[in-house]
Amino acid sequence: MPREVGEQYKKILKKYITNQSEVDLYAGQNFSKQFIEKEISPEDLISIHKTAVEEMVANLPTEVPHSFDFLIEMMIHYGLALKEHQSLLKKQE
Amino acid sequence: MPREVGEQYKKILKKYITNQSEVDLYAGQNFSKQFIEKEISPEDLISIHKTAVEEMVANLPTEVPHSFDFLIEMMIHYGLALKEHQSLLKKQE
Repeated sequence: MPREVGEQYKKILKKYITNQSEVDLYAGQNFSKQFIEKEISPEDLISIHKTAVEEMVANLPTEVPHSFDFLIEMMIHYGLALKEHQSLLKKQE
Repeated sequence: MPREVGEQYKKILKKYITNQSEVDLYAGQNFSKQFIEKEISPEDLISIHKTAVEEMVANLPTEVPHSFDFLIEMMIHYGLALKEHQSLLKKQE
């Protein structure tokens, strides 16, 4: 996964955390469409999110990154179901 | 979504954060299969995770819950793609 995607994500996330505006929230939603098109899995998204939060938040309690590791594992089955869907769609094309 | 699911999730997450053992991580993976069967969306999973972290971690920097709100919005399109998949599978039955 390109590092560039992570940097872009961090930028949008930072903007949202600073302003908490609806506009930035919708920017995120639109950005997520690109993620799906690029076949970035939901567990990869959590991983990108984890890195962004670690880089952005000072004095992050250690429980937070650990909790993200758990969430990544939880998300793996969602990712598999989604992959199944993407390959079904390709077959139908 | 039943409150019970959230409580169960918190229990397993807490165990993982305390021990960081592979066994607890796999317990999470298996738990996530049940989540998918119950048609709990990935954005709902993030929301359950957010609540658990807020209740569990003392002195959580405010950026963290805000970052979860952003992640929930990001996950909505993944949830939609998954729903589409589940309804395709039902049609094929």
